[in-house]
Amino acid sequence: MNFTFGIDVGGTNIKLGLFSVDPFEMIEKNEIATPRHEQRSSIFVAIVEQVTLMMKKHSLEYSQIEGIGLAVPCPVKNGYISVCPNLHWKDVNVVESLSRYLPFSMRVVVSNDANIAAYGENHSLSHPYNNAIFYTLGTGVGGGIIVNGQIVEGRTGSGGEIGHMPVFEGTEMCGCEKTGCLEQACGTKAILDYAKLLSQKHESIIDFRNISVKSVFDAAKENDPVGLMVLDRVAYYLARSASILSVSLDPDIIIIGGGVARVGQILIDRIVSHYQTEARFGTVDVPFILARTGNDAGIIGAAKYAKK
Amino acid sequence: MNFTFGIDVGGTNIKLGLFSVDPFEMIEKNEIATPRHEQRSSIFVAIVEQVTLMMKKHSLEYSQIEGIGLAVPCPVKNGYISVCPNLHWKDVNVVESLSRYLPFSMRVVVSNDANIAAYGENHSLSHPYNNAIFYTLGTGVGGGIIVNGQIVEGRTGSGGEIGHMPVFEGTEMCGCEKTGCLEQACGTKAILDYAKLLSQKHESIIDFRNISVKSVFDAAKENDPVGLMVLDRVAYYLARSASILSVSLDPDIIIIGGGVARVGQILIDRIVSHYQTEARFGTVDVPFILARTGNDAGIIGAAKYAKK
Repeated sequence: MNFTFGIDVGGTNIKLGLFSVDPFEMIEKNEIATPRHEQRSSIFVAIVEQVTLMMKKHSLEYSQIEGIGLAVPCPVKNGYISVCPNLHWKDVNVVESLSRYLPFSMRVVVSNDANIAAYGENHSLSHPYNNAIFYTLGTGVGGGIIVNGQIVEGRTGSGGEIGHMPVFEGTEMCGCEKTGCLEQACGTKAILDYAKLLSQKHESIIDFRNISVKSVFDAAKENDPVGLMVLDRVAYYLARSASILSVSLDPDIIIIGGGVARVGQILIDRIVSHYQTEARFGTVDVPFILARTGNDAGIIGAAKYAKK
Repeated sequence: MNFTFGIDVGGTNIKLGLFSVDPFEMIEKNEIATPRHEQRSSIFVAIVEQVTLMMKKHSLEYSQIEGIGLAVPCPVKNGYISVCPNLHWKDVNVVESLSRYLPFSMRVVVSNDANIAAYGENHSLSHPYNNAIFYTLGTGVGGGIIVNGQIVEGRTGSGGEIGHMPVFEGTEMCGCEKTGCLEQACGTKAILDYAKLLSQKHESIIDFRNISVKSVFDAAKENDPVGLMVLDRVAYYLARSASILSVSLDPDIIIIGGGVARVGQILIDRIVSHYQTEARFGTVDVPFILARTGNDAGIIGAAKYAKK
């Protein structure tokens, strides 16, 4: 039986998963703190240590490992990272670096974490689609785009950074130093700010001293007017963004994930409602679904991406 | 020596070109009126007749023809057209239909005319890029997207219909029955309407009784305030649209073609100026160039697409 490793390298933690290839199943997962010193080498050393431990524990031979996939929190182009603020990396070739510390020759693949999650979500469907768009909604809004079965990395590795597409005429500066980004309408901060703004004029059951995205959307499920207006605004801008991508790429499916999407089907239903008003031509019929792989999206996607 | 045919099937005329493959050169081109009756068969019969005539004239054997490429004015998916209003086609498999009338077995490929032009423009560069975005600016605004070297057709063949991406909050209905489309800011009608609107408040050298896109942009080149404001608005919305596509697809190049682009480098310069304000991350450096293949974009693109 063959196996792959899926590794999600974050600024705080590194998640590692060992998966069987066929059938695709998680054999074991583990999480370690991301090393904080000498990160150019220490992160790779720590990964290799964990990989080796898991292999020993399950008595695996090198020949049984089809590949190691890594998800990283920054743009990647052909395995190369120019800058990764979260990991304090500059000019790092991830494939070469990991290979240097591996005691055996191995297929190593790497991509941006949202792209990897997009790949993993699409390949977790019973039949992966050729063309898929994935949104991940959290503190930031990210995404990944699959065209003709391949992750769209683009020229500089910024492919799929759909949280920063301009969708409204804003004045407030986004983290990307521009205005009117989708993230500024659908990220966590935008959700909380808008709820607070609405509360000045509308009654609400939301406890604004302990406000969270969950509390706002829980209120929406109870038909709270503020909760519903916030949910509707998020859904509107996602639909508008999706209609832009659809008329450009005409995807087979649009997948919505990330912490904010935990509100569930009510978000999908609102998006679809706005999307049907916004969408052009035959793209009006594209299905929207919730992401399925949850917190393990990174390791599952990376493990699937590492398959030969 | 090997050859391909490039055929641009329009509602009024069908353009046909015979090209050598290596070096790629136009051997002959011809244009016939598009048949107006029984178009399900007559268009294919007319094409086969012209192809056969050109082959006889140049004493070509079937074995020397690598393929026939067709550009059509509607969405295409895997050679199949659901509806093509300009040609009065419904449910037509173009590849099968043309093959039925060809007296020899032949590679036949077909795609939407703007997609074909995008492919042709990209493949007319000294080194074709993996990822290219092409705008064609005319009465309508169309486009084509190349990702990883392939035309993006999408699920329903609507891939690359970037003239209909929503880029502003409009109220006037577009031909696609939606509002705020790029075409409504950058198409011929939008250009003329905006010039006329501005003329109510601004002095201008434009002769509004004989107004044309050319006369508006010629005025811009003379620093006419109305001409400049119109040019600037077109450039702004193109830049905004391009920044959306760039943060999604991170292309290697953006190519601007179509009749409206005949104004030349002044349009590119204004687009780039706005784009540098709009663009996110490393996508700010993507080059913009004018299309080069001009009126023959369709037949050149189709002939290149037909190469094995």
